[in-house]
Amino acid sequence: MDDKILLAHGSGGRLSHDLIRKQMVKTFSNPVLNKLDDSAVFELHGRIAFTTDSYVVSPIFFPGGDIGKLAVCGTVNDLSMSGAVPMYLALSLILEEGFPMTDLETILQSIEKTSREAGAFIVTGDTKVVNKGCADKIFITTSGVGIVSEKTDISSANCKPGDKILLSGTIGDHGIALMSRREGIRFETSLQSDCAPLNRLVQEMVASSDLVKALRDPTRGGLAATLNEFAENSRVGIRIHEDRIPIHPEVHAACELMGFDPLYVANEGKLVAVVSAQDAENLIRIMQENRYGAKSSIIGEVVAEHPGKVVMKTTLGTSRIVDMITGELLPRIC
Amino acid sequence: MDDKILLAHGSGGRLSHDLIRKQMVKTFSNPVLNKLDDSAVFELHGRIAFTTDSYVVSPIFFPGGDIGKLAVCGTVNDLSMSGAVPMYLALSLILEEGFPMTDLETILQSIEKTSREAGAFIVTGDTKVVNKGCADKIFITTSGVGIVSEKTDISSANCKPGDKILLSGTIGDHGIALMSRREGIRFETSLQSDCAPLNRLVQEMVASSDLVKALRDPTRGGLAATLNEFAENSRVGIRIHEDRIPIHPEVHAACELMGFDPLYVANEGKLVAVVSAQDAENLIRIMQENRYGAKSSIIGEVVAEHPGKVVMKTTLGTSRIVDMITGELLPRIC
Repeated sequence: MDDKILLAHGSGGRLSHDLIRKQMVKTFSNPVLNKLDDSAVFELHGRIAFTTDSYVVSPIFFPGGDIGKLAVCGTVNDLSMSGAVPMYLALSLILEEGFPMTDLETILQSIEKTSREAGAFIVTGDTKVVNKGCADKIFITTSGVGIVSEKTDISSANCKPGDKILLSGTIGDHGIALMSRREGIRFETSLQSDCAPLNRLVQEMVASSDLVKALRDPTRGGLAATLNEFAENSRVGIRIHEDRIPIHPEVHAACELMGFDPLYVANEGKLVAVVSAQDAENLIRIMQENRYGAKSSIIGEVVAEHPGKVVMKTTLGTSRIVDMITGELLPRIC
Repeated sequence: MDDKILLAHGSGGRLSHDLIRKQMVKTFSNPVLNKLDDSAVFELHGRIAFTTDSYVVSPIFFPGGDIGKLAVCGTVNDLSMSGAVPMYLALSLILEEGFPMTDLETILQSIEKTSREAGAFIVTGDTKVVNKGCADKIFITTSGVGIVSEKTDISSANCKPGDKILLSGTIGDHGIALMSRREGIRFETSLQSDCAPLNRLVQEMVASSDLVKALRDPTRGGLAATLNEFAENSRVGIRIHEDRIPIHPEVHAACELMGFDPLYVANEGKLVAVVSAQDAENLIRIMQENRYGAKSSIIGEVVAEHPGKVVMKTTLGTSRIVDMITGELLPRIC
């Protein structure tokens, strides 16, 4: 029975204890984690960023990543979008009884590799096991803390008319790559999820400019949700230009086929930045030098008109309001 | 359909947005949360404690609490067991499609009330929704950060022979209260879960003594797991005395009936402290003045013999090794 997760792995008894020592500590070993107290304790001084996200993606392995990589990238990116340097991560697993131990090992390895790339340490965690049928395989909640420098002031409420909207690459890759592997809608594509930790890209941007005002990663709800949040939280209008938004041909084709709008499809390795116009070209150059920002472009601007609303100039020359999605395009995309 | 959780409440679109603004921000309103950026940002200086736990308890409403109260108490208590003052909490929800909105509201109110009692703020969060049948109603992951004073050095690795073992009250109340409501094993009892935030109790202890060496709340795995963790992490022996361990008569009766050992039954409002012998009586007096420590007692001592093992002197005068549990007594107890 060593090859499956049992309810007893969540009991707090011997099997829980062995799972923590033999899997977690072995994989993530560091001085803070290895103390195995109820909390991780470390020194930090200054402005702290703190975030949490649960990951319920299905399937758990997908082209370009898995739920473990996603869980680290998502939380590292949420910290980064506040201008923080990610430092410490906490990992909470909910496992379904019968989950294969080898899959757990693969996911933990992926978490380790991604957190190492991001330079963040897994310092504390928890594992719960629920009866078969009470959860779908594995859910991961990743929380993180990071440090924000004193001079950084990044918030979705900071956008001002005249600012430029920067996007770090193609949109929709994560959602369409995932969908290509879903039961019932499998189609052939070489497309990979863009799932990536964006902390170094953000650090390079923030180090070279004091004029980055807002940052957000357009995950669930896509680019449309992110831009609407900027417009609402800053009470400004946002105008984007359809012909400037990079879209991978395979994403374009898949969206055409299935009637999706790529503006609403999730990304897991892209960011949207609102920056002062005077620094926009400079920032695009800096972003393009990072592997995760190679296709960065200026896709629009903040305007005084239509506050709270996002308007897109289409390739046909017309204007269209881009609202948040009201239904659900792709359940369990992250 | 306003009365049920829909997949679209987890879409990142309009319904997610409304759920966050109308439920979360309304219930937990505070300046850090209300910014609604990807991370909460606040000032902290010094030694930081950081913890996370997922809560999958079934049933979600039980005598003496619910999954929301439990999720706050568990995380507040994990911070407290490192000697930290809990400051900020992050809340991540995984909801099953169709979950009643009124139950969610009740749980959020309970979270708000408990975090207010503990003096901690909910500053960030996440909500995911999975298809019906892919989770059981609601899972909550609560993460927390707190401040540890410079002089505090509390760790399960600090126990030394001669130290005393203090327990803050009766054991097994949470597990048995929960079990009394489980399908198939319902029995009549007035017993309530002991679920409670212990931060003030710990702060009173730490403020009055520098000789608190280790603290832990005996949740899953019960008192037995906690004492074994102390023995293993400090490489010492632990001896406890059965006749000094307070047990509620109803817990005793239920354990007799079902063949459970109360040493393995979960608690959610108790702590075990390892303290220098010279301060033990003083600390017991301080603990007894707090409502959550009224029945505190000295239940044993750290010994040089049998390192890594816990031995109990029984009421019959015999000695018995108390190991961690190897199976699973009560799945989904927390």
